[in-house]
Amino acid sequence: MGNVALINTGTELLIGRVANTHQQFLCRQLTDLGFAVLHQCTVPDLGEPIVAAVEQVLPWADLIITTGGLGPTSDDLTREKIAALFGRPLREDPGIWSEIQRFFALRNKPAPPMTRVQALVPEGASVFRNDHGTAPGLAIPTGRRAGQWLIMLPGPPRELVPMFEHETKPFLRQHYSLAPTFTKSFRTTGAGESTLQELVEPHLTDLKQVEIGYCAGLGEVEVRIKATGPEAAEQFSRAEAIVRKELTPFCFGCDDESLESVVISLLRQRGKRLVTAESCTGGLLSHRLTNVPGASEVFLHGFVTYSNGAKEKWLRVNSATLQQFGAVSSETAKEMAEGARQNTEADFAVSITGIAGPGGGSEAKPVGTVFIGVSDRTGTEVVRQLNPYDRQTFKEVTIRQALNFLRQRIVKSVN
Amino acid sequence: MGNVALINTGTELLIGRVANTHQQFLCRQLTDLGFAVLHQCTVPDLGEPIVAAVEQVLPWADLIITTGGLGPTSDDLTREKIAALFGRPLREDPGIWSEIQRFFALRNKPAPPMTRVQALVPEGASVFRNDHGTAPGLAIPTGRRAGQWLIMLPGPPRELVPMFEHETKPFLRQHYSLAPTFTKSFRTTGAGESTLQELVEPHLTDLKQVEIGYCAGLGEVEVRIKATGPEAAEQFSRAEAIVRKELTPFCFGCDDESLESVVISLLRQRGKRLVTAESCTGGLLSHRLTNVPGASEVFLHGFVTYSNGAKEKWLRVNSATLQQFGAVSSETAKEMAEGARQNTEADFAVSITGIAGPGGGSEAKPVGTVFIGVSDRTGTEVVRQLNPYDRQTFKEVTIRQALNFLRQRIVKSVN
Repeated sequence: MGNVALINTGTELLIGRVANTHQQFLCRQLTDLGFAVLHQCTVPDLGEPIVAAVEQVLPWADLIITTGGLGPTSDDLTREKIAALFGRPLREDPGIWSEIQRFFALRNKPAPPMTRVQALVPEGASVFRNDHGTAPGLAIPTGRRAGQWLIMLPGPPRELVPMFEHETKPFLRQHYSLAPTFTKSFRTTGAGESTLQELVEPHLTDLKQVEIGYCAGLGEVEVRIKATGPEAAEQFSRAEAIVRKELTPFCFGCDDESLESVVISLLRQRGKRLVTAESCTGGLLSHRLTNVPGASEVFLHGFVTYSNGAKEKWLRVNSATLQQFGAVSSETAKEMAEGARQNTEADFAVSITGIAGPGGGSEAKPVGTVFIGVSDRTGTEVVRQLNPYDRQTFKEVTIRQALNFLRQRIVKSVN
Repeated sequence: MGNVALINTGTELLIGRVANTHQQFLCRQLTDLGFAVLHQCTVPDLGEPIVAAVEQVLPWADLIITTGGLGPTSDDLTREKIAALFGRPLREDPGIWSEIQRFFALRNKPAPPMTRVQALVPEGASVFRNDHGTAPGLAIPTGRRAGQWLIMLPGPPRELVPMFEHETKPFLRQHYSLAPTFTKSFRTTGAGESTLQELVEPHLTDLKQVEIGYCAGLGEVEVRIKATGPEAAEQFSRAEAIVRKELTPFCFGCDDESLESVVISLLRQRGKRLVTAESCTGGLLSHRLTNVPGASEVFLHGFVTYSNGAKEKWLRVNSATLQQFGAVSSETAKEMAEGARQNTEADFAVSITGIAGPGGGSEAKPVGTVFIGVSDRTGTEVVRQLNPYDRQTFKEVTIRQALNFLRQRIVKSVN
């Protein structure tokens, strides 16, 4: 009762102009709701392939979702072709047409006449409002199988994502009797998949309704538990407690929490302020920290001391240290963190200096070598890491190590 | 003779754990080679759906590409199921097995016995070597239609991408007589799609073999021309000259060039050095600049002066300026750029101060307001922009405006 086929329409997807972000978003949302997406396909913006793709999944799908092709131009065919396939005449919905006119009025423009086609609704369809564009979403009962619906969603992600969240999800919960499903992601750093698996799985063998999955990202592994079935609630809560306990050394947050949001939130709770001193990561650390709304309460300043001169001038790193140990050294990382903290009003400073590559490595310090320092009033610690990846992966992995090192230090510090 | 079906296998794609990056990469590569991808689908890691997906496209596809399912674990079924479908027995290739053993030896590990399955090759298959993993790619003539091949590529992008580039592309050029295809992307900023279209298209009406496409990204529009057919070479070179000329005010580079790589390269050519002073973009500008290999030759330092105190202390912005005009003002942007340049040894300084939101806007300066300054020894200029987007889009659009403003200034400066 929960098998899904996802049909993405769009020639731009098949010529590789844009990435298909809908696939990941919708598959994850639907899986968490208790659906099983069994098939996804992409077809060009042409009537025949759209209809053929729908016909092909009608025999088995409980839910069919299409994306794209609801706009006002000549290659937007989804609404018309699907309405025709199910023999549902299109009728203008005056409410939608006023919404479209209002959308343009707010932008001080008259609604272009061609946008009026977006007010057409197949007979018997439910309408999902579009708060970020003009084409509403549409849900029609196919009449081919009991309880089978076909849902059409707009192509632009900034329209589809909030529509799915606010309109489609409640609709699906109402029209499908899905087994209650519980999911939680534990976000970890500092251990590989197999280590995490060995920590957790021996304790979960009795919980037959709990599935566990691992997903390795850049410097992070997500451990995901999911439970469905009659005893799901009870088994899920037992599994959650076990996983939370066993992963304590590595887990920095759950679900949508990121290392940077956790760090900002710890600093805000404690009323502490932060400064960063980056070399090889070039500002990626301060960029990620300042993506968190409210960062300005705790983040004072970032130094991106790319040259040796900048390290000396702005962080008061000794030129003797640079000469004797090199810019990429534990000693330089220590002086960078201390200089950053002492020359500002920050409570914590984090420093990063390393060799991003492709050039600049040596036998003693190969490409990927990085030193990370954290300084507070109790002292300064430096760790050495080796991240032998391409330049961008190096930066991404390194800032996660720095954020986690900082997070642990903040947690340990006296409140 | 160039219709393609792309079949991505992987349950992780259908539960939304990972994004399908192969779709965009392969579709773009294949389109540029002169193929037409007419269908893409994703199926779970199960034998039956993989075979069904292949069978469904056999009647029409000239080329079938699968990704994933070539690894050593129990859910890696692509090789075995496809070999069986075409009645081709699997035989161990001793060369591949030694490659696999060498791969592990380099990593000081013995090759796990289960990896040996990756040395199995369907009878009559061509093998693509994998320089970044253990599973080779495989190409088999299907025997169902003249010239029809099925190509199996590994799932991990870091294995698939170089394999496609170095092994699969030459194979396809050799086995398919594709019409010669010429493509070029012109990367622009500062004008919308319709403006660019009006500039270019009236001049291209006679060039019937040239197609033109537009793709709007964050603060950028890519204009792409493509020509195929008997007079393609000649028409393409005429179109290229026209587009290059008409887009001069907006075009910053071609194909894979980015604004940051163009800026770094202009600075290197001129032997000039750069410093950045960012507030609301939080280091994203310096991060992108330092993604470019060789940035260290010209990029000295980045200030991420998030607080007013930092602007005063590190950039010598007058506290009177901050009080009278505010941190987000033309005056502050000017002093930030001048302070950054004068307090360092840089030839150019770029400054950014604005309101990223969600909070902090006013009627006079709504969320999204940003001032960008560029300073060199001839003076300092500031522009005001309005980028009323979410926090991350705001940052992305803003740094492109800053990079382009800087680029124009460098180009104008005396060499």
